[in-house]
Amino acid sequence: MATTAQPVAEICRTARAASRALAASDSATRDRALEAIATALEERMGEILDANRRDLDAGREAGLSDALLDRLLLTEDRVHAIAAGTRQVAALPDPVGELLGGGRLENGLELRKVRVPLGVIAIVYEARPNVTIDAAALCLKSGTACVLRGSSSAVHSNAVLAGIAAEAAEGAGLPIGCVSLVAGGGREELADLATQDGLVDLIIPRGGEGLKAALSGVATVPVIYAASGNCHVYIDAAADLDKALAITLNAKVQRPGVCNAAETLLVHREAAAAFLPRALAALDAEGVELRVDGRARSLIAGALAARLVEASDADWDTEFLALVLAVGVVDSLDEAIEHIGRHGSGHSEAIVTEDLAAALAFERGVDAACVYVNASTRFTDGGEFGMGAEIGNSTQKLHARGPIGLRELCTFKYVVTGDGHTRG
Amino acid sequence: MATTAQPVAEICRTARAASRALAASDSATRDRALEAIATALEERMGEILDANRRDLDAGREAGLSDALLDRLLLTEDRVHAIAAGTRQVAALPDPVGELLGGGRLENGLELRKVRVPLGVIAIVYEARPNVTIDAAALCLKSGTACVLRGSSSAVHSNAVLAGIAAEAAEGAGLPIGCVSLVAGGGREELADLATQDGLVDLIIPRGGEGLKAALSGVATVPVIYAASGNCHVYIDAAADLDKALAITLNAKVQRPGVCNAAETLLVHREAAAAFLPRALAALDAEGVELRVDGRARSLIAGALAARLVEASDADWDTEFLALVLAVGVVDSLDEAIEHIGRHGSGHSEAIVTEDLAAALAFERGVDAACVYVNASTRFTDGGEFGMGAEIGNSTQKLHARGPIGLRELCTFKYVVTGDGHTRG
Repeated sequence: MATTAQPVAEICRTARAASRALAASDSATRDRALEAIATALEERMGEILDANRRDLDAGREAGLSDALLDRLLLTEDRVHAIAAGTRQVAALPDPVGELLGGGRLENGLELRKVRVPLGVIAIVYEARPNVTIDAAALCLKSGTACVLRGSSSAVHSNAVLAGIAAEAAEGAGLPIGCVSLVAGGGREELADLATQDGLVDLIIPRGGEGLKAALSGVATVPVIYAASGNCHVYIDAAADLDKALAITLNAKVQRPGVCNAAETLLVHREAAAAFLPRALAALDAEGVELRVDGRARSLIAGALAARLVEASDADWDTEFLALVLAVGVVDSLDEAIEHIGRHGSGHSEAIVTEDLAAALAFERGVDAACVYVNASTRFTDGGEFGMGAEIGNSTQKLHARGPIGLRELCTFKYVVTGDGHTRG
Repeated sequence: MATTAQPVAEICRTARAASRALAASDSATRDRALEAIATALEERMGEILDANRRDLDAGREAGLSDALLDRLLLTEDRVHAIAAGTRQVAALPDPVGELLGGGRLENGLELRKVRVPLGVIAIVYEARPNVTIDAAALCLKSGTACVLRGSSSAVHSNAVLAGIAAEAAEGAGLPIGCVSLVAGGGREELADLATQDGLVDLIIPRGGEGLKAALSGVATVPVIYAASGNCHVYIDAAADLDKALAITLNAKVQRPGVCNAAETLLVHREAAAAFLPRALAALDAEGVELRVDGRARSLIAGALAARLVEASDADWDTEFLALVLAVGVVDSLDEAIEHIGRHGSGHSEAIVTEDLAAALAFERGVDAACVYVNASTRFTDGGEFGMGAEIGNSTQKLHARGPIGLRELCTFKYVVTGDGHTRG
């Protein structure tokens, strides 16, 4: 496996060569490689935990927070879970070779649009070492070579995990270079990796805004950003308020630190008086800090009113990723759509309504990867969508929008078969 | 319509606002707008030809070549052809709203993946003023606002054409700003346009390598390059040599100046002795300059041999776009695939063979937008592929690969409908 000593360009050249053999590999070989990786992870548990201990020791010495140390931590259970995830990816249908369209053209040519591997994907990611294996599994299943660049805090864990993945995959018949790791988590390696035009087909960052900013300044290869989400739940005039309450609570509270959690609640003025006192009390009881506009505040009395915070302009644009919710009252469905258009990040947006026309207007008027009618924004997820595992969610509009699953890691080609056809 | 006086950012903001109304517009309104544009072009013929005359006069004064002046020229016939093209686009099926997938999830949620308009597309292009209308028609049909930036040599023609398109479209009920033109063909406007993140969703350059280079250095919005092609025809050991001859001639000679014309002929050594003397004589008779490797040369005798040029290393990487062909002999199908992988631009690649296994190996082994078996590379074209009009051909692997038609000018969203669904 490619590690420390090699320059980034050399690693990418090896990956590019591997990608040709990978593209020609059959489904069974790739699945066997994933099974071999899962088995090797479990067999080499001690080695993995030893390496992880070195990262944890270094992290403690460097004063990492408990939260970061927990993200870094591997345990026997966690390694078994990674192995199980790898086996689940192996069990997914092969995205390669699927016929996407085609037919017989007027001139008799047979045209097929076929899904094919992308080539070489670079994944750059932060602390969690499980991404090393998750990303490698998704790429190999898609017939694509991957170049991984983890963070410096997980350097020992990542080196062992990537080494195990590469050895196991190569042992199962995949080409040398199908999985490789760029050692060193510095900005130089990142810039190197992001400018390997012709060798790297796509780079996917999984991390915070800092990583994205660092990348967008230098990348010349295509990038798909696994995106942040400023998601809204809109309670329409015609909402069923029980559904509205359940969806609002779920979207905000069930897992507030993720990109598909809601950050803003908008309520139609006709539903506000009946809904907001009940909803804000329930949210408050779950420990949610409520940042409300004047009209929402005017509907709340008692002790809760004192705990409400006045929403600032910035709150409507903020992805809190925490138990904080901005709350506003709107005059109309159009105003809600307009608000979401101005402040949303195009990730996941929900309407709660029993009115078919309102649902349709929201579906069409909201420009986002995922638009929900009477369902929580929390469903935006490759697994929930039946796509199997995902490498993140995209709020870009080109190529991949929403969950980035196996299919989104592929490209396609047209195959055209004739019998000596020439163009007149 | 937005023209000269407005700064680029303002034009793009108006286009962005228009894109929301356009996305909500129905198919019939958009088709009526295209019909209105076609009618207006024919009714305002005199105005168009007058403006074009001013560009031609300025071009002659500036010493433009006859070829460039011809690209710039509009005639009554050409304007009628542009109007007819617009009506053809109107007659195509609406790409917006097409269901791309979905179904009922295990939890009962109904998921639909739906094609939706992209938003705002910027098209930058060189001399030909017909692109002004072609691009506007494709974008409007796709429900997308377009910002056009033509070359300075066609400034008067483009202003009149874009003005007519905008007026006619707006008169037919589409929003103000659905078509706009950035006046000024300078590099500053280009850089301005290519950095309107959040306002412009995609920029498509139609032009030479200079335009692409200028763009790739500055663009921060997504770009799809309408690509050049270094295309190959490979004659397999098991080729039918009559088909091989017809395809080779067609791919090289029928229209040598376009991106899907062949630039290199590769011949399996077992077919070379029978094929090359005949093929090279026929190509020579068509005026093709032949740049051959040593093994090809050794098979040619007589007067033709004296006219052969020795192929340089650079010839294998050159898109001649002229009656010039590089010719080489290979030892195997694998060597041909390897050669194409090293030198091709991923555009259009053809094999001529009667051997099913060879065809399959070529289809799978060649990484290109379009792979042909027993057909000319010249078929790579949206019209030929049954996609209707196209705005160019992409050799990128993400989003659009091959012809960029109406569907490729769109994005998609997931619409998920529940009944109060929350995630557990």
